Amino acid sequence: MIVIFKPEARESDIEVVRKRLEAEGATTRLSRAARRAILGVIGDIPHLARMPFHAMAGVEDVKLVNHAYKLVSRAFQPDPQPVELAPGVLMGQGQFQVIGGPCSVETEEQMRMVAQALVDNGVRLMRGGAYKPRTSPYSFQGIEEDGLKLMRKVADEFGLLIVTELMDARDLPVFEEYADILQIGTRNMMNYRLLKDVGRTSRPVLLKRGMSATIQEFLLAAEYIAAGGNQKIILCERGIRTFDSETRNMLDLTAVPVLKEKTHLPVIVDPSHGTGRSALVSPMGLAAAACGADGLLIEIHPNPSEALSDGDQALDVASFTQFMQKLCVLLQALQ
Amino acid sequence: MIVIFKPEARESDIEVVRKRLEAEGATTRLSRAARRAILGVIGDIPHLARMPFHAMAGVEDVKLVNHAYKLVSRAFQPDPQPVELAPGVLMGQGQFQVIGGPCSVETEEQMRMVAQALVDNGVRLMRGGAYKPRTSPYSFQGIEEDGLKLMRKVADEFGLLIVTELMDARDLPVFEEYADILQIGTRNMMNYRLLKDVGRTSRPVLLKRGMSATIQEFLLAAEYIAAGGNQKIILCERGIRTFDSETRNMLDLTAVPVLKEKTHLPVIVDPSHGTGRSALVSPMGLAAAACGADGLLIEIHPNPSEALSDGDQALDVASFTQFMQKLCVLLQALQ
Amino acid sequence: MIVIFKPEARESDIEVVRKRLEAEGATTRLSRAARRAILGVIGDIPHLARMPFHAMAGVEDVKLVNHAYKLVSRAFQPDPQPVELAPGVLMGQGQFQVIGGPCSVETEEQMRMVAQALVDNGVRLMRGGAYKPRTSPYSFQGIEEDGLKLMRKVADEFGLLIVTELMDARDLPVFEEYADILQIGTRNMMNYRLLKDVGRTSRPVLLKRGMSATIQEFLLAAEYIAAGGNQKIILCERGIRTFDSETRNMLDLTAVPVLKEKTHLPVIVDPSHGTGRSALVSPMGLAAAACGADGLLIEIHPNPSEALSDGDQALDVASFTQFMQKLCVLLQALQ
Amino acid sequence: MIVIFKPEARESDIEVVRKRLEAEGATTRLSRAARRAILGVIGDIPHLARMPFHAMAGVEDVKLVNHAYKLVSRAFQPDPQPVELAPGVLMGQGQFQVIGGPCSVETEEQMRMVAQALVDNGVRLMRGGAYKPRTSPYSFQGIEEDGLKLMRKVADEFGLLIVTELMDARDLPVFEEYADILQIGTRNMMNYRLLKDVGRTSRPVLLKRGMSATIQEFLLAAEYIAAGGNQKIILCERGIRTFDSETRNMLDLTAVPVLKEKTHLPVIVDPSHGTGRSALVSPMGLAAAACGADGLLIEIHPNPSEALSDGDQALDVASFTQFMQKLCVLLQALQ
Repeated sequence: MIVIFKPEARESDIEVVRKRLEAEGATTRLSRAARRAILGVIGDIPHLARMPFHAMAGVEDVKLVNHAYKLVSRAFQPDPQPVELAPGVLMGQGQFQVIGGPCSVETEEQMRMVAQALVDNGVRLMRGGAYKPRTSPYSFQGIEEDGLKLMRKVADEFGLLIVTELMDARDLPVFEEYADILQIGTRNMMNYRLLKDVGRTSRPVLLKRGMSATIQEFLLAAEYIAAGGNQKIILCERGIRTFDSETRNMLDLTAVPVLKEKTHLPVIVDPSHGTGRSALVSPMGLAAAACGADGLLIEIHPNPSEALSDGDQALDVASFTQFMQKLCVLLQALQ
Repeated sequence: MIVIFKPEARESDIEVVRKRLEAEGATTRLSRAARRAILGVIGDIPHLARMPFHAMAGVEDVKLVNHAYKLVSRAFQPDPQPVELAPGVLMGQGQFQVIGGPCSVETEEQMRMVAQALVDNGVRLMRGGAYKPRTSPYSFQGIEEDGLKLMRKVADEFGLLIVTELMDARDLPVFEEYADILQIGTRNMMNYRLLKDVGRTSRPVLLKRGMSATIQEFLLAAEYIAAGGNQKIILCERGIRTFDSETRNMLDLTAVPVLKEKTHLPVIVDPSHGTGRSALVSPMGLAAAACGADGLLIEIHPNPSEALSDGDQALDVASFTQFMQKLCVLLQALQ
Repeated sequence: MIVIFKPEARESDIEVVRKRLEAEGATTRLSRAARRAILGVIGDIPHLARMPFHAMAGVEDVKLVNHAYKLVSRAFQPDPQPVELAPGVLMGQGQFQVIGGPCSVETEEQMRMVAQALVDNGVRLMRGGAYKPRTSPYSFQGIEEDGLKLMRKVADEFGLLIVTELMDARDLPVFEEYADILQIGTRNMMNYRLLKDVGRTSRPVLLKRGMSATIQEFLLAAEYIAAGGNQKIILCERGIRTFDSETRNMLDLTAVPVLKEKTHLPVIVDPSHGTGRSALVSPMGLAAAACGADGLLIEIHPNPSEALSDGDQALDVASFTQFMQKLCVLLQALQ
Repeated sequence: MIVIFKPEARESDIEVVRKRLEAEGATTRLSRAARRAILGVIGDIPHLARMPFHAMAGVEDVKLVNHAYKLVSRAFQPDPQPVELAPGVLMGQGQFQVIGGPCSVETEEQMRMVAQALVDNGVRLMRGGAYKPRTSPYSFQGIEEDGLKLMRKVADEFGLLIVTELMDARDLPVFEEYADILQIGTRNMMNYRLLKDVGRTSRPVLLKRGMSATIQEFLLAAEYIAAGGNQKIILCERGIRTFDSETRNMLDLTAVPVLKEKTHLPVIVDPSHGTGRSALVSPMGLAAAACGADGLLIEIHPNPSEALSDGDQALDVASFTQFMQKLCVLLQALQ
């Protein structure tokens, strides 16, 4: 259920309604869209809906939300909302953001070369895996805390923000020290305890779609985070699993306009994991921009053939630069 | 196996090689790329490969093709080849073609309104179903031969070419009288007898991907047509079947660059069936162009809410016109 | 819509109702279950439903059928109905039938060895492909009419019935001469013209599930046959397409009890194509019997390693004999 | 790499080899099959393989394992190995075990009724969810620690063992106090940190297949547990995600014989989640037994229509009793 206030409602009006609802056992989340305050209400809805809202000062309308997800729905927040990543750095609302970097953080030299390529192409966000979820226990598992420190050092030097994957809530203190944006990977999209934990931080969360998650399940995973109080959520389509083995995953670009119909959250695309082959990253990255994505996540490695993980899908610096030029032309044409 | 001739090879050289191969039981198909003749050879390859090709005049090289498909592969024809639909009307090689029209041919007035919209937007190709493959025997099955005649009449009046679906080889004579381009639908992609039959016609064939066909199976279906002698084949991605029911099908846009790596045939996309919802046609049509498609198949209906089939996914004339304007801007930016 | 007659209704009562319905433009199909006649009615139902049925002699009840499929639904025919394959040979109603034989008919010696193995194990139905739907145009395509004649000769000698795949309606005359049961393969489950054609024959039809067909689409394909007048239909689950490449297809055994809830038609299982590996045929064949299948389709070859097609999934004679012994024990336990 | 010792090898021989390997940086795991000791070796294999094994006393053979998984493979342990759940209670090696109980632990009365039904049918293992992974943050999340205590109390009273799902390593201490067997659910099959954590406990682990996990990924998840030192692992097929929405999941029974070819671990089936509908539990449970499963996981609720979660798929006590009778007959026939 959501309570929509009139433009002229006072803060005290809102506070009265919120307190009445909480006194009845509800949990509430306040947001603002256009010139109106909106109160999302979670709890025993049939009971709460009987409250005399229209007699309360400042209330314009009350709507029941039929989706399983509420806080992340357009019913709760009718207009697309950008996520503020740092002062002045938005994801969404016309700011198209590229996140670039290697699958795994390996060495300082590697990260420095990547950072230079990002800065040269006007990119503000650097990714890199320090803790790696690998299908085999015998594959390289990441350099962990050392990787986070190394990324922080390089990022600060080049003025970049860091996006990196969190796999376990017990690592949150160290991530909160070194990382700017917490990535939840595809394998953990239904790790609800982890979602609840990042819902209690103040860091923006980049949530990747599970490899066989429906759109509804994806939005409900985001709802877990939002229900914890953190509404700085970026959704990332990264390919789903189907019968065809021609590519590593099947990139579901239609998910972009479908998600944007249903939620106000920004939606980005990862064509690197979504295809698994570097030659496909550029065409599919352009296609993602053409169908309305708010950003891209691109794997870059100074020397893909020597990468410790996922080298097949990483662009080298020259290819990344070429891609960014095409992307700029396309984004300008689409405006 | 393919035999590549030198640029200076004479027709008589080629004829000698071809006759020797056919005398050994092979079937051959001649094509030309750049300045070279290429002879595709089908038959008992281990036996044929022992022939003394390098002693034959005009032969530059002989290659074994490892794919199951040969005539439609880049090994046989290294460069993208456009398909000539009518004198001066190409699909591919820089000519991006839109095919527009209703799911089902209903009335002359309907087709005339569609034709006008196509001409107004610079489109040359009109689609419409006369024989309809419907999941239920009790659904509208098309107006059959009357539909073909009606389309022909309207197409001639407006100077358009007709694309329409053939479901049964017994209808070929009537299709050869009224249609320009034969569509093989998704349900018949593995109807190998029908593929062989259209392989013997001279009409261009628009082959839609089966709803659970792999890239390899799709190319082998095209190979059935090519092996019959007809190399005027256009491949069409139209969505595959996956676990998510958010859209009617899952549009696999990555298939576009993947197919173009493997085959010289033009590749188009059908975002209408590929999404099943008119609001998604425009973003996914633009995305298809951005990742390298040679054309689009778009369902248009003067009044989608009254369509006898698939009204949910048809654009009305105003939306189609808007879409075409965005597409033009995008195509220019991509050049 | 279905009209259910009282047990005591006379033939003349039924005839009166049928004629009234047909005079109003309906098509009707008569069947009998328990002691009642049931008339399936296809046509403009809202109009037809206004007829004064309860005033007509012999009518007990009238029901609207909400499924897209009608004639093959339990609403039309509440009890499981066996299909009579030959006098005294039923599929269903306690007669569990195994159909055995090679993927492709190759030689008379091969078919004779197979036939002997079938007879030795009490099997009445022999399969073999004469016309083969192959993914590649360059794979062995079957020995066609010669194969049908050869099978007929061997079948007559051993007292067996023949099940073989029809790919094209133009071959119907030769199939009607040599074959007992017409198989429609997975690739043609949505070849609606072919379904209509076999709906007009009097031969029992073995309809295989399309490789990505839903249960609803499968039943609608059966409905196409039934609507043509032929209700001797056997449904065959043969594996669907999913993401896992461990087996050739994913055998969907749950389809057996699900189909049996919805339709009165017999349901069999093909564990040979459903798994693609001979070692899995026996466990999955037993499992199919355990969950309620009415029969099995098993590929047998006297020498699987030399088979011209699908040797990997064929049982040799010794393995088939072993399997049949286990199956008998299981079927007895389940009674 | 695995080192196979002669039957007559002494413990001291084995110890010498193990120490040499560990001195070279390897990790080793010892197991015994038939009359031989087998040492699984993990580490820099190309380097380790150069050691002069055949000169070492007691060594019979050395094999390289080509699978990504090693400790859970048949190469490491050629014969099926039962898992000991409690003294004398095995899963596997002829002991077919049923695990029964509700989706969620609700009340003591409920659990007592379930426990009575289990004991009455000769079942030794009781399941029940205390911590529930729910797709929506607003669905019932389980009664947590109270549920574990309640289950322990009832289990002790009736002499049952408890199987229950662990979602977060931070809960391990309380699970080690109250639970006998730790279940890892489908959503956490790729939560590698959690797998490593249960690899360090001594409790048997019931690992459910991820909803879109391949067989290879499933075995690698088990390998994560085994690599931590815990080889008491039971694999559970519970349905995968496909295009058909007729059932909640698509039960992949073929996974049973496929897994048993590749691993020595016991394999069980969950037809309750695997179908999502109580009417399908009995046929699919019987089918699972017929294709070689070592056990079943069955949801039971004294009153399914009032269950707080997943009531649609739970059997009531009468249906469970009926099912157990059929299962006994089938298991005897299969021996």
